[in-house]
Amino acid sequence: MQALIFDLDGTLIDTVYAHVFAWQRAFAENGLAIDGWRIHRRIGMSGGLAARAAARELGREINAAQEEVLLKRHSELFRKFLPERRPLPGAVEMLRTLRAQKVPFGIATSGSRPEIDLSLETLGIGTETVVIERRDVKRAKPEPDLFLACQQKLGVPVGECYVVGDAVWDLLAARRAGMLSVGLLSGGYGENELLAAGAYRVYRDAADLHRSLDELGVLP
Amino acid sequence: MQALIFDLDGTLIDTVYAHVFAWQRAFAENGLAIDGWRIHRRIGMSGGLAARAAARELGREINAAQEEVLLKRHSELFRKFLPERRPLPGAVEMLRTLRAQKVPFGIATSGSRPEIDLSLETLGIGTETVVIERRDVKRAKPEPDLFLACQQKLGVPVGECYVVGDAVWDLLAARRAGMLSVGLLSGGYGENELLAAGAYRVYRDAADLHRSLDELGVLP
Repeated sequence: MQALIFDLDGTLIDTVYAHVFAWQRAFAENGLAIDGWRIHRRIGMSGGLAARAAARELGREINAAQEEVLLKRHSELFRKFLPERRPLPGAVEMLRTLRAQKVPFGIATSGSRPEIDLSLETLGIGTETVVIERRDVKRAKPEPDLFLACQQKLGVPVGECYVVGDAVWDLLAARRAGMLSVGLLSGGYGENELLAAGAYRVYRDAADLHRSLDELGVLP
Repeated sequence: MQALIFDLDGTLIDTVYAHVFAWQRAFAENGLAIDGWRIHRRIGMSGGLAARAAARELGREINAAQEEVLLKRHSELFRKFLPERRPLPGAVEMLRTLRAQKVPFGIATSGSRPEIDLSLETLGIGTETVVIERRDVKRAKPEPDLFLACQQKLGVPVGECYVVGDAVWDLLAARRAGMLSVGLLSGGYGENELLAAGAYRVYRDAADLHRSLDELGVLP
């Protein structure tokens, strides 16, 4: 296997629970009180898709203007709740190993700039790394577009790329893209949920994956 | 089966993600940056046990004074982040059915008064209902003390009580108490995690359980 395509939130950086809680408050402020666990299970999808799906759980439909209000308020609350960013254990070290071993890798995230800039900076990811964000493609996860755009920019065949993600949406999108996927527990899904969504292997976090790069055939 | 013993947070009331995030900020403010998912998987244990276990994940030990600081700060942040309480779907209706059908039930929570008062009030639980809280027993979940104290106060044999909870700690404590347990997904665990911890049945939330009380042999 030649290359790795990483999800960002919950995979490399510890932001999932801040996102869940920011969404929950943004929904509640707008008269849409939604259970935390239902929001959690939507994280990693496109924000717009998540907002519409969550509203549908209440038997409501939201229009484009309401969706825009929710996305904006989520973004404000997220920055307020979590002013700093923290890499998940092993993430920085793993990326350093991949660079040193000249293993191609990229980032493919449902998040957008400038919201993701601080996460990328915290992880030491600069302009030399391929980063595909929400606005670079028409449709976010679970559509395969983000992963396919990343793979094309890396110039590695689909069958030679692993997707690494913490959410079922990453793993489902990877299958649509024809790629094998690796699940991490660091986004708060259970192991069996990730396996049921098609993960080839599941590790606890980036540190655990880092130690296992040889068994995946990424390092010799 | 004669009686039901309910956990509170994540089972009847939508507080799990606010608790996770309040713990995460309380830890971070005290120099203990801990992954959200590791905190999530400790919710429902005694607060002191959770704080010590979380610190241990960082290879640190905390003393009683530090534990007290963390518990106090968590409690402050929790009230700040979540000023109101919201019952989980179906919870209020299910308790109403149990009262109408004269099915004995009680609450057994790792939380303490006065922090839980607003949750109980929101659910319409008054002094007529048996409520066992953290301070009523020596040891909280996953020890069986809370459930056994509730069962004794209800005056129903152990083998005739179901425990209903959202966390593996509820289900593990139920087995220690010699009780069957029902898992709910509303705390954000995966179904297989709850089954692996010994759940007799798993439902999505209180509304789903409410519809299934006959198949559990609680209602005729």
